Amino acid sequence: MAGNTFGNIFILSTFGESHGAAIGGIIDGCPSGLIIDFEFIQNELNRRKPGQSKIVTQRKEGDEVEFLSGIFQGKTTGTPIGFVIRNENQKTTDYNHLVAAYRPSHADYTYDQKYGHRDYRGGGRSSARETATRVVAGAIAKLILKHHGISVWAYVSQVGEIKLNKHYSEVNPSIIEQNPVRCPDEQTAELMIDEIEKVRKEGDSIGGIITGIAQGVPAGLGEPVFDKLHADLGKAMLGINAVKGFEYGSGFDGTKMRGSVHNDIFLKNDNKGISTLTNKSGGIQGGISNGEDIYFNVAFKPVATIMQNQQSVNSEGNKIELLGKGRHDACVLPRAVPIVEAMTALVLVDHLLRNKTTKLNL
Amino acid sequence: MAGNTFGNIFILSTFGESHGAAIGGIIDGCPSGLIIDFEFIQNELNRRKPGQSKIVTQRKEGDEVEFLSGIFQGKTTGTPIGFVIRNENQKTTDYNHLVAAYRPSHADYTYDQKYGHRDYRGGGRSSARETATRVVAGAIAKLILKHHGISVWAYVSQVGEIKLNKHYSEVNPSIIEQNPVRCPDEQTAELMIDEIEKVRKEGDSIGGIITGIAQGVPAGLGEPVFDKLHADLGKAMLGINAVKGFEYGSGFDGTKMRGSVHNDIFLKNDNKGISTLTNKSGGIQGGISNGEDIYFNVAFKPVATIMQNQQSVNSEGNKIELLGKGRHDACVLPRAVPIVEAMTALVLVDHLLRNKTTKLNL
Amino acid sequence: MAGNTFGNIFILSTFGESHGAAIGGIIDGCPSGLIIDFEFIQNELNRRKPGQSKIVTQRKEGDEVEFLSGIFQGKTTGTPIGFVIRNENQKTTDYNHLVAAYRPSHADYTYDQKYGHRDYRGGGRSSARETATRVVAGAIAKLILKHHGISVWAYVSQVGEIKLNKHYSEVNPSIIEQNPVRCPDEQTAELMIDEIEKVRKEGDSIGGIITGIAQGVPAGLGEPVFDKLHADLGKAMLGINAVKGFEYGSGFDGTKMRGSVHNDIFLKNDNKGISTLTNKSGGIQGGISNGEDIYFNVAFKPVATIMQNQQSVNSEGNKIELLGKGRHDACVLPRAVPIVEAMTALVLVDHLLRNKTTKLNL
Amino acid sequence: MAGNTFGNIFILSTFGESHGAAIGGIIDGCPSGLIIDFEFIQNELNRRKPGQSKIVTQRKEGDEVEFLSGIFQGKTTGTPIGFVIRNENQKTTDYNHLVAAYRPSHADYTYDQKYGHRDYRGGGRSSARETATRVVAGAIAKLILKHHGISVWAYVSQVGEIKLNKHYSEVNPSIIEQNPVRCPDEQTAELMIDEIEKVRKEGDSIGGIITGIAQGVPAGLGEPVFDKLHADLGKAMLGINAVKGFEYGSGFDGTKMRGSVHNDIFLKNDNKGISTLTNKSGGIQGGISNGEDIYFNVAFKPVATIMQNQQSVNSEGNKIELLGKGRHDACVLPRAVPIVEAMTALVLVDHLLRNKTTKLNL
Repeated sequence: MAGNTFGNIFILSTFGESHGAAIGGIIDGCPSGLIIDFEFIQNELNRRKPGQSKIVTQRKEGDEVEFLSGIFQGKTTGTPIGFVIRNENQKTTDYNHLVAAYRPSHADYTYDQKYGHRDYRGGGRSSARETATRVVAGAIAKLILKHHGISVWAYVSQVGEIKLNKHYSEVNPSIIEQNPVRCPDEQTAELMIDEIEKVRKEGDSIGGIITGIAQGVPAGLGEPVFDKLHADLGKAMLGINAVKGFEYGSGFDGTKMRGSVHNDIFLKNDNKGISTLTNKSGGIQGGISNGEDIYFNVAFKPVATIMQNQQSVNSEGNKIELLGKGRHDACVLPRAVPIVEAMTALVLVDHLLRNKTTKLNL
Repeated sequence: MAGNTFGNIFILSTFGESHGAAIGGIIDGCPSGLIIDFEFIQNELNRRKPGQSKIVTQRKEGDEVEFLSGIFQGKTTGTPIGFVIRNENQKTTDYNHLVAAYRPSHADYTYDQKYGHRDYRGGGRSSARETATRVVAGAIAKLILKHHGISVWAYVSQVGEIKLNKHYSEVNPSIIEQNPVRCPDEQTAELMIDEIEKVRKEGDSIGGIITGIAQGVPAGLGEPVFDKLHADLGKAMLGINAVKGFEYGSGFDGTKMRGSVHNDIFLKNDNKGISTLTNKSGGIQGGISNGEDIYFNVAFKPVATIMQNQQSVNSEGNKIELLGKGRHDACVLPRAVPIVEAMTALVLVDHLLRNKTTKLNL
Repeated sequence: MAGNTFGNIFILSTFGESHGAAIGGIIDGCPSGLIIDFEFIQNELNRRKPGQSKIVTQRKEGDEVEFLSGIFQGKTTGTPIGFVIRNENQKTTDYNHLVAAYRPSHADYTYDQKYGHRDYRGGGRSSARETATRVVAGAIAKLILKHHGISVWAYVSQVGEIKLNKHYSEVNPSIIEQNPVRCPDEQTAELMIDEIEKVRKEGDSIGGIITGIAQGVPAGLGEPVFDKLHADLGKAMLGINAVKGFEYGSGFDGTKMRGSVHNDIFLKNDNKGISTLTNKSGGIQGGISNGEDIYFNVAFKPVATIMQNQQSVNSEGNKIELLGKGRHDACVLPRAVPIVEAMTALVLVDHLLRNKTTKLNL
Repeated sequence: MAGNTFGNIFILSTFGESHGAAIGGIIDGCPSGLIIDFEFIQNELNRRKPGQSKIVTQRKEGDEVEFLSGIFQGKTTGTPIGFVIRNENQKTTDYNHLVAAYRPSHADYTYDQKYGHRDYRGGGRSSARETATRVVAGAIAKLILKHHGISVWAYVSQVGEIKLNKHYSEVNPSIIEQNPVRCPDEQTAELMIDEIEKVRKEGDSIGGIITGIAQGVPAGLGEPVFDKLHADLGKAMLGINAVKGFEYGSGFDGTKMRGSVHNDIFLKNDNKGISTLTNKSGGIQGGISNGEDIYFNVAFKPVATIMQNQQSVNSEGNKIELLGKGRHDACVLPRAVPIVEAMTALVLVDHLLRNKTTKLNL
């Protein structure tokens, strides 16, 4: 109800401000008997954490997760998995100038309007630091998906005006982690890195697009009419900081097509039964997965924190000037790739479990 | 859980197949004391129903709603509002050829995969007929929003390649209902109508974009981190039949901008306190409304039903040829305008009510 | 949220006032492929309906259920099952004297306090007529339970001071429906019937206890820590009109025992694996079913409507005298037996489905 | 869904096993602006913790709560409140004999049946240690209730056969904390203490009853038909370890009364408007509070752990003998008093917040 819980059966609840004692969460509804690969989970966190490359913020945060419950002798017990990530790198005095200031396009003003007061240190609850908890839960979700033969991956397909001109089906996923911008094309990656460097030097920020893919999803996931699989994926993505848009399959381009071109013809496929010749549906028809690849795009705005001076007002409505300072990402997309994957995995596991009660004879 | 319920406090649950006895729903959590304007509700239904103009399907459906409970002496009682809309125009024999056929880009195959069997008549539960129930609930939501000074409206801003080249803030909303395509610009509307006519004559279908707007929304609505206001709007829109994408504020275009350009500077505004100079945020910052206009785009694919013959397979995987016939929309966007409005109203009322418990002293 | 929905996966939402157009509901999450036995459902409704014997109210209500969706060719489709029961026997003028009157121990005053106004005709939403919708959903739940080898039954074990002095395990369930009071012992039944007759002639009402039993429940149902199986059963029973208490297994008597006497010793049982020598646990340990019989008692107060004149106040706080009139039950317990069974079945089916996602390899 | 979350708006989610790293929880939906009295919260925990008197278990547990988020400058921020209580006194080797043993009337067998394996150390998740997290959340709930003029208290009214022969309205609440058994009558308290001592020396355990009271609850709380206030109270109590029954108002005794005796006559009361002459309704009519005192009884069985040898079986079904050892309560009721209060407070705060959206003009 208060917006800090995600999922219906595989349920993540999170807490934590960027400069409080810790962030953390509870994963409830994780099936028992899952072997936990702690190294994998920490590695997923490392893909998100600051300081991992020259093009991301140089803040140092350990982002080490401690599990407190729900795992016994290396396996989940079916009881809730509590976990915390301590906040180590707190410099509260850095934020005194923000006590009453409303930074443009940040959540300072809206949090004050909603709650009456706020933890102003580093964005508090509105900081993207909170997404580390999603990566923890998403990593566990990925372990379940792997058990069912489902893989989830994502990459940066656009930074500013620089766009990867390849369809997801043409890229080599193994290249993604080989460059710091997480683009599966070396040349485009270099252009993107140059662009981010340029923007950073100008004290500015830049947006872009992340493409997400899920493969091996069985037909049947999704709950029409309101919890269509793509509707839950869209909500999951739009809940990530800085996201402004979501499209799946043919997306916004599909609006210009004719039905005769857009329709995906069904075929008998020797290996997997019935499949489709094309996949403009993006693996989902009528809100339910059809067994084809699921793919979608997530639009990120340029982050609001820039290293330039800006006009604004304070909580009393008086004009102020904000000075650009601190350690921030000029482009959040490289670090957002594991977050997009995590949220995708959470949605898919939840729907996988929801689907287990659909038919009488399951 | 099974996907037929929407909302957290103002809750709509719906039922019904296109060719069953009736569709209907229950609205639970509607505040008591609301005066029900029955004529307004029926008028909203009429804006959605088939046969209202030459560019939409000529099927005839009365779409008359009967309220069964929750309203006494013209006012809501706070108890659940049950309602039904009878299905009148059922020609079951029309659908015998679809018993085992999987129509391309329809939900036939996925429903069979998920549920084991399906009501194949006219799409059954996957038919857009179901959205009539959302319009009923959305109309009641609009009455509550009106009581709070909030207005919701939408229009067709693109059909195929034909695009309205005006920002929402430049259009005259009163024009919307003056043409059958619901575009607030007479010239563009004519081009759109011509395009739809052309597509229809070719037995084809065409997609497009609907733009939605909410004005008068107070600052403070939205529940971070997962139930951000735009995340719930996005889910609501993606749950409408044929929708492939959602963006709000600067949306996908914003991905190409610099932060220094994208940021909305705060100003002291004599009338309404603090406001923003620009509104690339689309009225929502950190997932919470900031008092500015909320606006967004919804992408619709060309509908799957076309009047052309298509190859497909049946449930046994054998090749079949589907013949195009029946009475269908070549372009669903004109009739989808009230649905976009209804879902917007449902999201806003729900968040308005959710926000009533945020502060201790409310 | 507004209290008209029950269950987590197998979900019943209900609507309707006793003297509105209809009562009804939506069952969402019913597994697809269930064959619906319409005669059985109507028979369950008949067990609850007024006028079925001389010891219950002589009001005449058809209580015929019409299904509107979710069932196709005799089987559930997995989509929501909408249904209505029309209110036929409305004599609205009967209730003019109640417009502003607050009947003692009724819900008139509290509904007015909560909602500001109310449908005063026949109790409106607070009327036990609403429970007919639960019987419909409970009947469908029983069909699912039957498919899993689980049976649910209940009987009247006490009326006023007259108590059946037999443990549930000693009674013959087939006797229950052979007498109008639904007590599985002919002699006790006669005493109860006499008592109810006597009370009725005096224009008074009388309370009692219903015992509920579930047999064949597999071990493993129930979700600690908050949704323990007996906690959900207790809530289900306490949500029935006029219920004042719930106990399971050894119940209130168990509070006087020593642990050494109360503990149920585990045994190896050739037929069904591990079982217990005694069953003071009532088939539930740690909130989870253990495979033994589940049994519990439900306490009903004497209903508030009596045929005697009573002092009270009206909505303005002025003294009034209420005259006893109308057609009412002197003892609701016989008609409440199918309601207790229905709510038990709803809880068990919901937990049966919830348990399908507990282990990784299910 | 998995049973570790309680509440609809004021929501507590908990995690933790008795011998894992920590127990803890998240409180989501706590209104912003509440001043947190940390000393009060710790004091509530101290009322529950072991070793506080000679009649409870002599295990030593610090039970110190650490808050991790959601509180800033001494006040709640409206964001989730994360907290942990470290498990200090773990002697894992104490539990090696329980790896495969099924203790009578414990949750060992049912957890194994449900989850496939379990954390067997000290009962794991089924240990009453988990209730410490409820006391933390309940203490915060009490702070909110105090703000609204509502008080919640409870006491031990029966231990074994020893019963306090006073109605709640006749006792002096200030005596409750003056004796270790928490009975508001010195003489009865002494008898209870003697009984517990006697039982303890015999290596046995004993049950009893706790009476709970809420005063100052405004009329209007409770959500018919399924979430009646007493139904949610009942579920809350039945979710506490060892609870076997719940009754409110006249309870099981009321089943023997006539309606003419049981009905609570309404009166005009100068101070508080309309009130009732008697209060057999227990402050709740039609599932909604009527402004009178709410009172109820909670039945606790004798705890399953006894210091006597018992026969049982292990997970392979082989006979074993369990030896009584360890540090345990012979009677849990004194320590359960703050748990009953905590769960009562959670229910009342949740319904207080739920009621804030009932009327249009709130």
